[in-house]
Amino acid sequence: MASVDVPVALLGYGTVGSAVNRLLNEQADDIERATGHRLRIVKALVRDLARERGFPADGGVLTTDVGEITDDPSIAMVAEVMGGVEPAGEHVLELLRRGKHVVTANKQLVAQRGAELFDAASGAGVQLRFEASVCAAIPVIKVLRESLVVTNVHRVLGIVNGTTNFMLTEMEGGATYEEALAEAQARGFAEADPTDDVSGADAAAKMAILATVAFNSRFALSDVEVVGIDSITPLDGAARLLDGRVDVRVGPALVDRHHPLAAVEGAFNAVMLQGDAIREITLEGPGAGGVETASAVIADMASVIGTMGTGFLQNDPVWRTLPRLGRGENRSPFYFNLSVVDRPGVLARVAEALAERDVSVARLLQHQNGDGAALHVVTHETSQGALDDALAAIASMDEVREKPLPFPVVSERGIAELGWA
Amino acid sequence: MASVDVPVALLGYGTVGSAVNRLLNEQADDIERATGHRLRIVKALVRDLARERGFPADGGVLTTDVGEITDDPSIAMVAEVMGGVEPAGEHVLELLRRGKHVVTANKQLVAQRGAELFDAASGAGVQLRFEASVCAAIPVIKVLRESLVVTNVHRVLGIVNGTTNFMLTEMEGGATYEEALAEAQARGFAEADPTDDVSGADAAAKMAILATVAFNSRFALSDVEVVGIDSITPLDGAARLLDGRVDVRVGPALVDRHHPLAAVEGAFNAVMLQGDAIREITLEGPGAGGVETASAVIADMASVIGTMGTGFLQNDPVWRTLPRLGRGENRSPFYFNLSVVDRPGVLARVAEALAERDVSVARLLQHQNGDGAALHVVTHETSQGALDDALAAIASMDEVREKPLPFPVVSERGIAELGWA
Repeated sequence: MASVDVPVALLGYGTVGSAVNRLLNEQADDIERATGHRLRIVKALVRDLARERGFPADGGVLTTDVGEITDDPSIAMVAEVMGGVEPAGEHVLELLRRGKHVVTANKQLVAQRGAELFDAASGAGVQLRFEASVCAAIPVIKVLRESLVVTNVHRVLGIVNGTTNFMLTEMEGGATYEEALAEAQARGFAEADPTDDVSGADAAAKMAILATVAFNSRFALSDVEVVGIDSITPLDGAARLLDGRVDVRVGPALVDRHHPLAAVEGAFNAVMLQGDAIREITLEGPGAGGVETASAVIADMASVIGTMGTGFLQNDPVWRTLPRLGRGENRSPFYFNLSVVDRPGVLARVAEALAERDVSVARLLQHQNGDGAALHVVTHETSQGALDDALAAIASMDEVREKPLPFPVVSERGIAELGWA
Repeated sequence: MASVDVPVALLGYGTVGSAVNRLLNEQADDIERATGHRLRIVKALVRDLARERGFPADGGVLTTDVGEITDDPSIAMVAEVMGGVEPAGEHVLELLRRGKHVVTANKQLVAQRGAELFDAASGAGVQLRFEASVCAAIPVIKVLRESLVVTNVHRVLGIVNGTTNFMLTEMEGGATYEEALAEAQARGFAEADPTDDVSGADAAAKMAILATVAFNSRFALSDVEVVGIDSITPLDGAARLLDGRVDVRVGPALVDRHHPLAAVEGAFNAVMLQGDAIREITLEGPGAGGVETASAVIADMASVIGTMGTGFLQNDPVWRTLPRLGRGENRSPFYFNLSVVDRPGVLARVAEALAERDVSVARLLQHQNGDGAALHVVTHETSQGALDDALAAIASMDEVREKPLPFPVVSERGIAELGWA
């Protein structure tokens, strides 16, 4: 193959952008071997030309004028690594309409304006790739689109936020929420403002994108149900296709010790894909990081080059509308605990409140707790709505000290086999 | 996209072949959405036309004459799912030379004749894909080639044989080797003749292929060092690029409880890829099975269609020769145990034998064992050669009852942090 130089532009030249440029330079031979081409950054949009960069760009590459990229017909492909929904979104839309392939690392952009962007790409016959937007270097988008073509993926389950997973690991070791957050920030996992992580907004964007790709439909951030209790770590995302209806949610969950996701520690992410032909495949790795993200951006660039002209699997011009599960219709086994005044008949009344709503108890443990008793309950699979009703009734009892908070239980084994750790 | 029918042929129509045909039929719409094409099996080579099939082929599809496939210019792509090195190898070579893309699920063929096949494919300008040959539906070949383009993968480590991993899991639960093997056979994991699994030949073929792809070089089955003790489960494969020299091996290993691979239970496979830009990515899933393998075969077919004309990342016409590590030069921490007659000075003599060869002890536990003592030793990282010398010296001592057998220890943490389970 004769090597052809491919002029590429970047929107943004921060941590990820400069790592992209560095890797393109250092790994130029590997990229040429893989694609037959050398990728060369010819323009990079920045806000401040004078700022120092991790890997400096060649003279004349940095620009503050996006027109130097959109109007340059020699640039066939652009990587958006600037972050933020605007103005990144308008730039990407314009680039796609001008017939340029776009690779983006921007999860909020894809989760919030994905449908529009896909339409623009499809209309112009160009590709929009976004591997780096979900779990950095873990290639879950490519695997879903290109490896699991015939497997009817019906469930996607993951630990998709490294910051909160790291914090939870720390908290299991005895740290408080505040200590865990401080440690996550000290190690560079959490931003100075960790709101997106601990509120679940980061995880929700990833799950919206994963559901879109896995189920070949369209899910936006607003379609994801987020259990937003910032003082409890929201780390777990799940999307499920059930009888043709879809449920996408993010929130804290209890994971069975024997479940593959239970072994995911610290800042790592893991995504489990369940489908007809594959049973389940789990991908695990670092879900964040500048170089990791840059690696995924370049892999997408290489894939664009490798499939130019065929549009392989990227834009899904044909997608389907799937109805959402109604609020409370999602089903799972759940765990909750209760702090009660130890009075005769309490257990019976709690059990009755559950039984009346057809919530069946799989395991129950009662023990002394100061002057009262603590009840730990794992239910069989039930709807969240029925459980919420039962818990509201239980919370209204005089003997119950606090409204119990239920967590879905993630286990591949029968719930009855779960032990108390 | 206008849909175009793509005529495809199969070599073999057993469990995998008929599952390929069934999935192509049942998932035709999904495949068309992903590729713009419908794949249709027009010929399938079999030995016995009369045999009953899981999913019957259409009339006229089955043939005992390979010429009906090689000589048919309308067939652009062939999937080899017949197994065995010959005649499969000659058929595939001829098909590639005739300009047909080939997808194969045959690990022994790729491990034993890969270099020849790659050359033939490259010479004819067609693709040879073999995702299904390694760990069935786990997309490790695609991820290595297309997602980790710029990451300098330097280590591949995996549990790549589901049968032996299942047996080991059973044996941990108290089963004998014979009971574990019988259970694996009863569940359909192990063949009636389990030699390839328990001897390490199956794992060795997979590691040869993984090393070839990960390091962009050429490794054959004969390049893999197999610790072939059939009464101990060989389950673990490792390939490592160290200072430009490569070590590829298969054998039993002790895996730290906290290591991601330690959570892989039963018949599942897992492959961990370590590289500069990604730290590590682990892929886990079912490593065998007819439908799982068929799913990978079809994913390869879809990828061929998606990249026709670009030859994206498949044939590596430019590959590099990498020197192999010499025998005994591989380095690892090791575990071994010793059964000794409890006499004063034994421990000192054992320690001296190790120290003389610069084998440094990280942890040592001694306990009473009947009328003697048992010593459990974990070394710091050392070369296998130095350890083997030390163990030979130790075995020659009067007080030592059996020649000790060392196992590499797989841990991401410092060896000194390892506990005794």
